[in-house]
Amino acid sequence: MENKILQSAYSPENFRKRGHQLIDQLADHLDKTLNEKYDKVIQWNLPEDEYVFWKKFLADGNQAHLFSEILKHTTHVHNPKYLGHQVSPPVPLGSLSGLISSLLNNGMAIYEMGMAPTAIERIITEFICSKIGYDNKSRGFLTSGGTLANLTALLSARKAKVAHDVWNDGSDRDLGIMVSEEAHYCVDRAARIMGLGDKGIIKIPATSVFNMNVSLLEEYYQKAINDGITVFAIVGSAPSTATGMYDDLKKIWTFAKNHNIWFHVDGAHGGASIFSAKYSHTVNGIDQADSVVIDGHKMMMMPTITTALLFKDGNHSHATFSQKADYLLNKSRDEDWYNLAKRTFECTKTMMATKMFSLLAIHGAELLAANVNRLCELTEEFAEMIR
Amino acid sequence: MENKILQSAYSPENFRKRGHQLIDQLADHLDKTLNEKYDKVIQWNLPEDEYVFWKKFLADGNQAHLFSEILKHTTHVHNPKYLGHQVSPPVPLGSLSGLISSLLNNGMAIYEMGMAPTAIERIITEFICSKIGYDNKSRGFLTSGGTLANLTALLSARKAKVAHDVWNDGSDRDLGIMVSEEAHYCVDRAARIMGLGDKGIIKIPATSVFNMNVSLLEEYYQKAINDGITVFAIVGSAPSTATGMYDDLKKIWTFAKNHNIWFHVDGAHGGASIFSAKYSHTVNGIDQADSVVIDGHKMMMMPTITTALLFKDGNHSHATFSQKADYLLNKSRDEDWYNLAKRTFECTKTMMATKMFSLLAIHGAELLAANVNRLCELTEEFAEMIR
Repeated sequence: MENKILQSAYSPENFRKRGHQLIDQLADHLDKTLNEKYDKVIQWNLPEDEYVFWKKFLADGNQAHLFSEILKHTTHVHNPKYLGHQVSPPVPLGSLSGLISSLLNNGMAIYEMGMAPTAIERIITEFICSKIGYDNKSRGFLTSGGTLANLTALLSARKAKVAHDVWNDGSDRDLGIMVSEEAHYCVDRAARIMGLGDKGIIKIPATSVFNMNVSLLEEYYQKAINDGITVFAIVGSAPSTATGMYDDLKKIWTFAKNHNIWFHVDGAHGGASIFSAKYSHTVNGIDQADSVVIDGHKMMMMPTITTALLFKDGNHSHATFSQKADYLLNKSRDEDWYNLAKRTFECTKTMMATKMFSLLAIHGAELLAANVNRLCELTEEFAEMIR
Repeated sequence: MENKILQSAYSPENFRKRGHQLIDQLADHLDKTLNEKYDKVIQWNLPEDEYVFWKKFLADGNQAHLFSEILKHTTHVHNPKYLGHQVSPPVPLGSLSGLISSLLNNGMAIYEMGMAPTAIERIITEFICSKIGYDNKSRGFLTSGGTLANLTALLSARKAKVAHDVWNDGSDRDLGIMVSEEAHYCVDRAARIMGLGDKGIIKIPATSVFNMNVSLLEEYYQKAINDGITVFAIVGSAPSTATGMYDDLKKIWTFAKNHNIWFHVDGAHGGASIFSAKYSHTVNGIDQADSVVIDGHKMMMMPTITTALLFKDGNHSHATFSQKADYLLNKSRDEDWYNLAKRTFECTKTMMATKMFSLLAIHGAELLAANVNRLCELTEEFAEMIR
């Protein structure tokens, strides 16, 4: 009896039938959305009403309508009138690659659990590193979202720049990071998770155009030092969340170099500018960052969540979660790049690299450039309209 | 020109055509895998060879073969001979729901960006809470993996049980958690991220059958206190990773209650036993845990990564990342359950709840019970064979 339930749930023929139906539903949905045949981007329901609807659906809804009801009750990010939420309308090929990932479910912690996606992840991150302007000492990996990637980068910074071994011996002093007051809240959150508290998050005021006021860096740094804070990192936003303004990465780099602190770029949203000849100037100086975060699901047309974390010096990516800080002494030629759980926060993760790889393999990198250009041009048009 | 590239990439008709091809490929693959028509679970390649293969594929491979090559170069988790990696052979319906999530890409940070999936997430977590044995004060959410869920639970514990306000004022003393030496490494990792160091991770030796030796709890606790450590949490493993042995949750709970510390259950792997009448005894006492982690992608047949984090007292889930610890004073009736970024670590996340909801809506909860029973029975058979 139990085996019958399982057999039916795993039946390839049920999957084939439901799958073809779903592809047609989604293709129709995509057509209607892109061509504005729907009235609205969202058919608004209050949270409680939405909750009651699905509760009732689970109790006595028509199973055959499950997917079509989900389509009705969601935000249509492919609608040309959709704006303002910083989540990508995914390129449909990325979604199909996601389906492969979902069914194959290769977990990626160690090489044998994700042979193709592990190799593909190296290729994808090398591609992004080269676009950043990093040399072949650089390395990267994909991880579950920008918040996690920023936390991971700050942990790498703590390991690399704090003389005391916090990972093994615990925190024994007041540590601090510098960041614009306009930065995404996840930087603040990462610092608090690490136990830095208010005083460890040195917020640099923004200018009148909402980017970091770099003329204040020395003053705020000296004040922190005088207060007994060991500053180990500074984060540049590319761009900040609310306004989309890019920090002056070159000036931040100069400051970081002068004080020997880690320079991290949160390019979750706009780091994809590196793919566009027309807009890459917005991230001038990014090639000097010790670490960079770029979300695939912002301006790289990927389904959530597919974040790249890139390191100028790949050794740091191996050191973040290592138990002893012996990485700089390790002369082994085999860097064990293919066992990702040693470098990523998560043990199991999706085959997210295959989504980006498909885009490159089938559409080519020019699609990324075209998308960045289109988004920025639309924004300029919009700015003109409301001026 | 650029618009043409974009139009082609987003074309509904290209999606339809590729989608139908992919469904057939995957249905055939599923059939071959389940019925062992492939020689092996994995066609092994060395990491460097795999890397070279995909590098070459990107340069001059046949695009039309992309998906079929990925199928060849992965681990086939649906093969009946697959074992040992603790990642689920996903139920195909879960993968189809994942495709919807991938295309719709509703980001889930705030309600308007994920109307249906937010409501569905509440229903799913309420369902799991009820199976744990929690009452209606409980709450939960889904998050990106067991490692992140365990970190989040320990942050909640720190907020609830450390008198000092670490989130705002920074860490000012030696904090510690207790956990079996056989626990998953992510508990150790979470503690080190929070700056606890070696001394803050009090490893309780395991018994000869590899579960936590609970007779040592008092001794280790007193030693930690004498060493100046403020112990704020204890983690029970359900089960531990390497051996699959369950800790005695009832005894751990009694200990935690006596010392007023947080009781967390890492049920990432085996928490799904709550769905089986036959095996739920393995997690006796789980209903007394302050927080519980269960991975959908272990014994709940879900694609990676779909982890549930459940709180006995839902107030704690709102307090974890809140800026001020005013949650216990908050008498507002509107608990704002529908803006998930306030409670989850990540801002953007996938519509993971829809995958679990589909399983419940179409197959019913008995599928979960059948799967747990089947896995445990197979394990018992296997144990018998090698005895």
